[in-house]
Amino acid sequence: MALIVQKYGGTSVGSTERIVNVARRVAAFRAAGNQLIVVVSAMSGVTDSLLKLAREVSREPTDRELDVLLATGEQTTIALLAMALHDIGVPAVSLTGAQAGIVTDGVHTRAKISNITPHAVRSFLDRGDVVIIAGFQGQTMEGQITTLGRGGSDLTAIAMAAAIRADLCQIFTDVDGVFTADPRAVPAARKLEEISYDEMLEMASSGSKVMQARSVEFAKKFGVVFEVRSSFNDNPGTLVKQETASMEQVVVRGVSLEKSQAKVTIAGVPDKPGVAAALFTTLANANLNVDMIVQNVSLQGTTDITFTLHRDDAGKVRKVLEPVLGTSIAQDVIIREGVAKLSVVGIGMRSHSGVAANLFGALFEAGINIQMISTSEIKIAVVIDESRATDAMKAAHARFGLDATPAPTSPPDA
Amino acid sequence: MALIVQKYGGTSVGSTERIVNVARRVAAFRAAGNQLIVVVSAMSGVTDSLLKLAREVSREPTDRELDVLLATGEQTTIALLAMALHDIGVPAVSLTGAQAGIVTDGVHTRAKISNITPHAVRSFLDRGDVVIIAGFQGQTMEGQITTLGRGGSDLTAIAMAAAIRADLCQIFTDVDGVFTADPRAVPAARKLEEISYDEMLEMASSGSKVMQARSVEFAKKFGVVFEVRSSFNDNPGTLVKQETASMEQVVVRGVSLEKSQAKVTIAGVPDKPGVAAALFTTLANANLNVDMIVQNVSLQGTTDITFTLHRDDAGKVRKVLEPVLGTSIAQDVIIREGVAKLSVVGIGMRSHSGVAANLFGALFEAGINIQMISTSEIKIAVVIDESRATDAMKAAHARFGLDATPAPTSPPDA
Repeated sequence: MALIVQKYGGTSVGSTERIVNVARRVAAFRAAGNQLIVVVSAMSGVTDSLLKLAREVSREPTDRELDVLLATGEQTTIALLAMALHDIGVPAVSLTGAQAGIVTDGVHTRAKISNITPHAVRSFLDRGDVVIIAGFQGQTMEGQITTLGRGGSDLTAIAMAAAIRADLCQIFTDVDGVFTADPRAVPAARKLEEISYDEMLEMASSGSKVMQARSVEFAKKFGVVFEVRSSFNDNPGTLVKQETASMEQVVVRGVSLEKSQAKVTIAGVPDKPGVAAALFTTLANANLNVDMIVQNVSLQGTTDITFTLHRDDAGKVRKVLEPVLGTSIAQDVIIREGVAKLSVVGIGMRSHSGVAANLFGALFEAGINIQMISTSEIKIAVVIDESRATDAMKAAHARFGLDATPAPTSPPDA
Repeated sequence: MALIVQKYGGTSVGSTERIVNVARRVAAFRAAGNQLIVVVSAMSGVTDSLLKLAREVSREPTDRELDVLLATGEQTTIALLAMALHDIGVPAVSLTGAQAGIVTDGVHTRAKISNITPHAVRSFLDRGDVVIIAGFQGQTMEGQITTLGRGGSDLTAIAMAAAIRADLCQIFTDVDGVFTADPRAVPAARKLEEISYDEMLEMASSGSKVMQARSVEFAKKFGVVFEVRSSFNDNPGTLVKQETASMEQVVVRGVSLEKSQAKVTIAGVPDKPGVAAALFTTLANANLNVDMIVQNVSLQGTTDITFTLHRDDAGKVRKVLEPVLGTSIAQDVIIREGVAKLSVVGIGMRSHSGVAANLFGALFEAGINIQMISTSEIKIAVVIDESRATDAMKAAHARFGLDATPAPTSPPDA
């Protein structure tokens, strides 16, 4: 008998009909002899409706009360799923985050889990119940309701799996798993059978938004093996786990693309200690989320620093940096929108040379100019013109042998 | 500085606009120098929507999960009201029933409050906050979410007022207070300035559904003085409190009417101990809510027992009693719908004779036949034909001097 933690997202429980379907799926896993903990999100659309109500009563809703409000979303889903299970004869019990023993810090709307006391969960499991837990929420030591922020339900599932030492954690979502590239852009993309935490992290931070990086990091830290799979079919998904020797045979695991980026060059930056720190502290204080940063060697006492960030934030950059322009910190700022970031990711890169050359070659052959380059141990990222981004992704996908063979074993079926 | 507990029902918080209005009202009471605890219900319509969802996933939703589901209704309102108060600069904090220390027994969907530990409430009050509490809900000692059943939010307010020794409890609702009769039926009805708990109880159980009897009983038991008043204007309402000497000067406080009743006569019941008990146990086990019961003296060894109940339940009576008809317990059952119960209520009756004669005289003059009579210490109730019910109420209202004078001091303004 295995203990499985399953998580169903907002789309998977987006209507009462879908909740009934999830109940049938849970019942089948239980009938196969497993103990089950099921973490659910708010029904899709509910959180937005609640936020709309909040804005109708307040210009700037307070974080503590937003948490009290938003926590009702998952509480609704847990009760409905428990009822749906009872209706088909499966014993089940619903628990809010607080009741499930999920204790967080007091940072409302983006709380961190500080510990989990799963003894209530354990005793309901021992009684034979399917235990349904509200994702995304917890409470402080003082009993205040908190929410975990974006991707919070995934985090609840993975943290609970760690705390209760589950045999497996399954993240059910609206995609079939993790793909070698976005199948909507690259028809030849294949679903991966497995991927390492580090690869998944690099894929996530490079635009493949199957899961938030924080959940993957948590799983890596506590060694929680989890599977990303679809709640709309019975196909196996992608296993995310610690890297294995066989994984290293694959040089490039996947290709990901982040569109709608802007490229910002700060020109005439003195080449001396502390200047870069001052610049990026200014940007961080303005809540500007900077992604890739490149600085080349300085030849004349000053240098240029270039970074990327989301296009929506580009407008704020000039205003934030205005006070230092023309001073001893920086001369000018040049902002260019319409760029995209293409990344190739794979832990096999560590032991294989020539990956960068291969990527650059593929892009050259496709006639695509490279504007910036940045590398990590398991990733090579380039900034290119957004209008050629999909072509670039297809070219890289083909070059690294990721395209599906004529008779693929795991066809994409999203 | 007074400590006031206010309760706003579902209609009073039925939209975000109304929640903003409640916030303004609360702010004004606070600005006048009071400490405030505000108990709120779910926004009107929300509970029905949640029940609809429940029926979509389950033929017979379980009580425990219904409580988890329904409790989200008030939780939504408390957060929105706290935000609305913050928006106009009033410090406020929302608490679920559990957070407010409301502990109940484990009878889901109709739990009883077993005790209240208001120390969290007290410490937020001391900090200067308006404390907003979700009505209708609590938790068991084991941390399970419970709801209190019909009228539960009134009960939360009155129980909290008792536990924290509030100076006053105000029940804001969609009527102006307690009237001598339903103003929609009797235009000459007057709003009462005060009424005793016992009179309020008899009015409530006789169809004047301003509040559920259980809340009034709780207030009586713990001596909580409360005011019933409108959330849509600033008129003073009706004070409900222990009877005073001056109250006894008023023979009849009010007249109330319960329509849509049915009259059931069980004929040929042996006049011996235990038979009535057997009959009414059978009815109670079928969840039939019997109201007035009349049995006259027996002249021939058998008697007839007549009782009233809501018309909607009348259909079940024959089916439930079928097994005993024609036996040594009962011969036949005769069911007549289309009747109503008229009650006149007043603690002054105790020391005044002739009230019954006066009522019967008024009905005779109006040409209305009396089908059943039942009396308590402070009430006389009669069953009459439903088609004449309003005429009967008007006649009684006038006969006992309750009609508004040409220049009333408290005109009805509903």
